[in-house]
Amino acid sequence: MSTESLNAPGTTFAEGHAAVLSAAARSSVEHEDRLKASTDRSGFVAASLPEGVVFAQDAGEVAEVLRRATAHRVPVVPRGAGTGLAGASSARQGEIVLDVSGMNQILRIDPEEQLAVVQPGVLNAELNAAAGQYGLFYAPDPASTAICSIGGNIATNAGGMRCAKYGVTREAVLALRVILADGRELRTGRETIKGVSGYDLNALMIGSEGTLGIVVEATLRLRPLPVQTATVAAFFPNVEQAARAASAVVAARIQPSMMELMDGQTLEAVDAALGTDYRSRGASFLLVQTDGHGAFLEQDVVMDAVSPFGICERAVDDEQAAALVTARREAIPSLEKLGRVSIGDVGVPRGKLADVVSGLEAIAERTGVRIFTIAHASDGNLHPMIVMDPEESVTEGPPKVALGEMFHLAKSLGGTLTGEHGIGLLKRDWLQEELGDVSLEVMHTIRQALDPLGILNPGKAI
Amino acid sequence: MSTESLNAPGTTFAEGHAAVLSAAARSSVEHEDRLKASTDRSGFVAASLPEGVVFAQDAGEVAEVLRRATAHRVPVVPRGAGTGLAGASSARQGEIVLDVSGMNQILRIDPEEQLAVVQPGVLNAELNAAAGQYGLFYAPDPASTAICSIGGNIATNAGGMRCAKYGVTREAVLALRVILADGRELRTGRETIKGVSGYDLNALMIGSEGTLGIVVEATLRLRPLPVQTATVAAFFPNVEQAARAASAVVAARIQPSMMELMDGQTLEAVDAALGTDYRSRGASFLLVQTDGHGAFLEQDVVMDAVSPFGICERAVDDEQAAALVTARREAIPSLEKLGRVSIGDVGVPRGKLADVVSGLEAIAERTGVRIFTIAHASDGNLHPMIVMDPEESVTEGPPKVALGEMFHLAKSLGGTLTGEHGIGLLKRDWLQEELGDVSLEVMHTIRQALDPLGILNPGKAI
Repeated sequence: MSTESLNAPGTTFAEGHAAVLSAAARSSVEHEDRLKASTDRSGFVAASLPEGVVFAQDAGEVAEVLRRATAHRVPVVPRGAGTGLAGASSARQGEIVLDVSGMNQILRIDPEEQLAVVQPGVLNAELNAAAGQYGLFYAPDPASTAICSIGGNIATNAGGMRCAKYGVTREAVLALRVILADGRELRTGRETIKGVSGYDLNALMIGSEGTLGIVVEATLRLRPLPVQTATVAAFFPNVEQAARAASAVVAARIQPSMMELMDGQTLEAVDAALGTDYRSRGASFLLVQTDGHGAFLEQDVVMDAVSPFGICERAVDDEQAAALVTARREAIPSLEKLGRVSIGDVGVPRGKLADVVSGLEAIAERTGVRIFTIAHASDGNLHPMIVMDPEESVTEGPPKVALGEMFHLAKSLGGTLTGEHGIGLLKRDWLQEELGDVSLEVMHTIRQALDPLGILNPGKAI
Repeated sequence: MSTESLNAPGTTFAEGHAAVLSAAARSSVEHEDRLKASTDRSGFVAASLPEGVVFAQDAGEVAEVLRRATAHRVPVVPRGAGTGLAGASSARQGEIVLDVSGMNQILRIDPEEQLAVVQPGVLNAELNAAAGQYGLFYAPDPASTAICSIGGNIATNAGGMRCAKYGVTREAVLALRVILADGRELRTGRETIKGVSGYDLNALMIGSEGTLGIVVEATLRLRPLPVQTATVAAFFPNVEQAARAASAVVAARIQPSMMELMDGQTLEAVDAALGTDYRSRGASFLLVQTDGHGAFLEQDVVMDAVSPFGICERAVDDEQAAALVTARREAIPSLEKLGRVSIGDVGVPRGKLADVVSGLEAIAERTGVRIFTIAHASDGNLHPMIVMDPEESVTEGPPKVALGEMFHLAKSLGGTLTGEHGIGLLKRDWLQEELGDVSLEVMHTIRQALDPLGILNPGKAI
């Protein structure tokens, strides 16, 4: 979309941008800020820079930014912690970035109702630390928990390691305050656990990558911290065996609170980064946690299910368990030490885990691209990691070919392009193929109805 | 909305209705069929009769009905088992009823992926029986499980007794095939557990009461049947104590698979219908089930939490446990023997359970209306049952006043008009007050975008 066509009659680009930038107390047109806002953690960099960044401190400023953006037809790209993995907050020429990372207050924690009211810039880990003081936790836990913000989690419907048991962001959001494209404030959802009055606008907003509105406050469901957690670490001769072990856990009617798979190459990278020696114990790894009052009874079932496929051990204490979880959480940072990383995010039906793992190996061989595999094994969501040389990019050459083949592999197995990271700018090329014409048309119809000028994060999500 | 204005230029009402009715092999204009389609189980009867009923046998017929309805501007009211509790399928003059209850095939059960593919007319209990053969179950379980259909469950985002632990219909639907107002087929969702490509059209359709499209096929998530279930029955001197006991269970960090509350009057009605003697044991009742590998460990915690408030007993065997669940499931039929019943459905934050119960008693006293209370106590969803004389109606007089006061009570406690039954025609009067103008406008905007002629179930849901 040409930004020229967006501009309101009678105003120049520069006037429009200046009006939007001055809608809040703080803004910047510094090169450094614009450069930062042109990318995220996906490895995708927009081909141009946005015009400037406006830093909102409250809902009123967000509304004023959008009112002016509407008046001047200026496209606005919302941005939180900038840790997205699909280029959904990467901004380009003609666009103004609306940075809400400064709206980072935890407004209320209600331990009795087990809920929290937060601003979008609150970091996932900050919320968990605050909730922990009341014996509660916030379930969605992206690997980036320490650096990602709740607003971004909502924009992408983020998952994480615990979501197979406790649900993704959609299941954790009770209510939202959203500023619409024209500056009106919309309230979605409610504080009750259940409620069906009207359409589910909560769910419509969640995962829409800021293309339907900008979240300025969220009421989130907290859960009681499990009374106990049991941890199993298992090592296998190859990654297919690990995948089969994971399927065996599902078949044994256990719902782990965490079931994480890493391949041998990733173990090597983790060992190099952390000084551990996991790779010496096997060529793939499965971490299975069960929790709650039945945690150790369930652990027995996990041990029985996994043992036929490899060597498994119970963590002897919380410290050992924490070290294993850290190894998994450090997988991405460890790989980032090897080169430029692009994080895949395909999802497949759970029984296809071994098939997709073999398929990924074949893609790596065929394209010559290095692919490391980690997976949320209990919901069939894999993160194949493409590790490139610094000058390579996932938007061209063999890495792009590999990315496309990954999607086609997932699709051929009944799966999806993205389990939890979103579409952004990175995966748009394959979206139509997954969704089909009618679905995409309906999404564009809804988008058009809510944001007729198309000023909210144009070109993302759909 | 006048049906006249809907009619396409150049066609008469009669021509339009005839064209729609002849779009499928079977239809009826018999008085009996039209009368049946003017009501449901809500106690609400539309003031007029629809023009006829067309019985679709497959997706192709549904699409043809809607294509013709669009061509002739004929409003269409989808109908499944007719067990709705909000008048959402009650049809009126000028409307044609599209009955999909004949589309009642279970198309596939995949035990490995733990999913089922079904047509909308499949009854909830039929699906559970079929899934049970594979050691699986379908979690949403309205009290009407034996007679309600999956299509209706989806249209209302139905809950039930197990949903506090296992989620409502939204959490159980993986994918849908939907026929849009103009006859196009939309596919929403996917077979994977997670997936975030594009907007969450699954959730948008779920609970939209057939105003955005008509579901012709659903892919549903099944879960492994719990390895064991532990049951506690507790009796209390009054209903406030039962509510406090329920809150104590939540505070004890237990997620029961079922926590059902009944007041003393309801126990009397159940005793009269079943020949039991529960009322002699207390003036209110709480049934708490825990399940899974930790079921009996959790039961110990439940006993400790509930004991301070009343007398509690563990069910000695499965038979006794089943009898207790039956007592709860038979509550509504038992009350229906006492008079004409209107089933309320308010939701409140869980800690407000005792407050809302006291408030309901005050409403009964003030209005002279008989209100019996049952509740899904672990998610704050109450079903206050108004029992009337046969000539009374919930659309006028003291019952209507009581219904309005119930809503205002729930709202004053931070709650909602409807936890799981929906809006239909019955609760529209209070919807704007709950949602506010912007929210309702956004919903109408979406509705307008997807069904510009407004032919799908006009006047319902929003």
